Amino acid sequence: MLERLNRVNLLFDIYGPLLTGRQRQVLDLYYREDLSLGEIAAEFGISRQAVYDLIRRAVGTLEELEQKLGLWQYFKFQQERLVEAESILQKQELEAGDRRRLQELVHELLQKL
Amino acid sequence: MLERLNRVNLLFDIYGPLLTGRQRQVLDLYYREDLSLGEIAAEFGISRQAVYDLIRRAVGTLEELEQKLGLWQYFKFQQERLVEAESILQKQELEAGDRRRLQELVHELLQKL
Repeated sequence: MLERLNRVNLLFDIYGPLLTGRQRQVLDLYYREDLSLGEIAAEFGISRQAVYDLIRRAVGTLEELEQKLGLWQYFKFQQERLVEAESILQKQELEAGDRRRLQELVHELLQKL
Repeated sequence: MLERLNRVNLLFDIYGPLLTGRQRQVLDLYYREDLSLGEIAAEFGISRQAVYDLIRRAVGTLEELEQKLGLWQYFKFQQERLVEAESILQKQELEAGDRRRLQELVHELLQKL
């Protein structure tokens, strides 16, 4: 469940600007501020069911956007390679193998652009 | 005008999946296959004006998406740094300054994720 929470948060970070203002507000209160359905319902003067439906549809939209644009996958790919490049560059000495690996990583990153 | 064509093509590459099937078809014929408005109108059995409006609205949507997500800017930023990293790595010898610059570039790229 913690993984799903994390995923929704990441998708929200990426695709948030494409949601409606209302959807952004509710997702923010639920996933970032950690309010309960009841607390959000009270805040907006709507039913808990209505809040639940709003969240469900908004998350559905986020998942659709990820399916179409694949940005979360892309950023994950990027981060893994950049973190590896960073740790190689922190070594005392760079050997030939390190340089080759760095070139590979940069090449892979450029290919994916 | 060549720059604008290039920009639309890039935005289309990035955000194309978020357009309707119809919009993708028309933009593809106009910007990639280089058909004229008249040729596209004939293909779809609609007026040239209708084709023009379709293109104008689709390009407007692409620009809105770029304003909201800023991916074109992001990829441009990425590419500039990766291309610089690539040319540094192609040098015969890597000096201390080169390593520092590579670390800077990787750090900037990770920050922007």
